[in-house]
Amino acid sequence: MVAEAIRKAALRLVRERGYRNVSIGAIAQAAGVARQTLYNRWHAKADLILDAVFEETGRRADDQLPLETGDASRDRLERLLIGVFNHLRADGDTLRALIAAAQEDSEFREAFRERFVAPRETIVTDILAEALRRGELSREADPDTLSTMIHGAFWYRLLNGRELDHELARSIARSVFP
Amino acid sequence: MVAEAIRKAALRLVRERGYRNVSIGAIAQAAGVARQTLYNRWHAKADLILDAVFEETGRRADDQLPLETGDASRDRLERLLIGVFNHLRADGDTLRALIAAAQEDSEFREAFRERFVAPRETIVTDILAEALRRGELSREADPDTLSTMIHGAFWYRLLNGRELDHELARSIARSVFP
Repeated sequence: MVAEAIRKAALRLVRERGYRNVSIGAIAQAAGVARQTLYNRWHAKADLILDAVFEETGRRADDQLPLETGDASRDRLERLLIGVFNHLRADGDTLRALIAAAQEDSEFREAFRERFVAPRETIVTDILAEALRRGELSREADPDTLSTMIHGAFWYRLLNGRELDHELARSIARSVFP
Repeated sequence: MVAEAIRKAALRLVRERGYRNVSIGAIAQAAGVARQTLYNRWHAKADLILDAVFEETGRRADDQLPLETGDASRDRLERLLIGVFNHLRADGDTLRALIAAAQEDSEFREAFRERFVAPRETIVTDILAEALRRGELSREADPDTLSTMIHGAFWYRLLNGRELDHELARSIARSVFP
């Protein structure tokens, strides 16, 4: 439960002050633990923040996907994207900071890829693979490339400081499933 | 011509040592000018490197596009992407560093968007608009969203440390023009 308290303190501080203005020391103080407790568990600030955001968004990403699969794949994809974009209105700046941190530290980039990026790719490629089975997507379509283009679209918008709105979610879903 | 010598020195040093390991002072020394000469012209290192990469890649991006437009839009897009990916094999790490720098400095992000991102979006939306006129793209297709997905795809691959190869160029072009 100490880890959860630390994650919550980290997420709160990062949302209040921004990624760059929060130190490991400040997170330790807010969580009421020693700095060493954090370093025992996380390699660096980026790893801790990734963990805090990952735990949080992992739950939310699951919330967005219906258990039943009766809906059209286009609607599932649009709803997933709307959920992701809603989340990024709160934590988009943190995600931008983590993507930037990943460019400066190849070890963190690997961790980021494994724990954050890859699971989210799977959610989208699962929707696309199901669409292929149902005949909602051309048999020549490549789910990996489409998934790259879908995730890429909102990374690109986010990193260029532009809005992620429902219109974009709808337009991406319509581009993938014309 | 002093500006060109500085740009060349900057690009060479960044390619040799990596963005983070090159200082304004080192660029000034390599170009044989005073540091103040650089600061008179560029606000910060990111601006100078952007200028060096922009000048270089601006020429190359133009090289890739044929003047005549007789080719199929799918082929034009594939060829453009192959040219961009070839270039990013040399300067991809610098572009990653500039994207990261843009996340930490909103003033630079605006400059980056205006001078680097927007002109490249125009090249792609021009191909897509021409494809719409020729009927090679569905009339419901949205060139802005498709352009975002195309640029996003290779930003996403680049920022996740994955390869940008001819196969990806081909696959993106086929996804846009099935």
